[in-house]
Amino acid sequence: MKKSIFYHAGCPVCVSAEHDIVTLVGADNVDIIHLGENSESIAEAEKAGVKSVPALVTPNGNVLHINFGASLEEVKS
Amino acid sequence: MKKSIFYHAGCPVCVSAEHDIVTLVGADNVDIIHLGENSESIAEAEKAGVKSVPALVTPNGNVLHINFGASLEEVKS
Repeated sequence: MKKSIFYHAGCPVCVSAEHDIVTLVGADNVDIIHLGENSESIAEAEKAGVKSVPALVTPNGNVLHINFGASLEEVKS
Repeated sequence: MKKSIFYHAGCPVCVSAEHDIVTLVGADNVDIIHLGENSESIAEAEKAGVKSVPALVTPNGNVLHINFGASLEEVKS
């Protein structure tokens, strides 16, 4: 199965959701990208349709915005 | 593994998220509850911490609010 991508920014909401998603989906099935530490990935996340973090981009390209940690605008600044 | 519970209300956002979650987590690992058709489950969902649908309650009791379809108040009315 193609991997999902979990985008986050290190906020408490993000870390909690990350643990849940990894447990549910399996660590081997998801790449974790910290946008605070990899700001070059922000454009890639925006292109995928991510509006806020934490968010999970599924293998078929859908974006699941999970709870609400921060908008991408907040992550950029 | 204890099952997750996916609460939804039949809205387009809900149905889309349901497909994604079932694909990611596996149909055997998640119970699907339609709150529009099972209004007696609304109190149970609220007690679990669900504020809006679609939402996934994980086996350890965390609530993942996914995208945004409708608030529970809207589902009640």
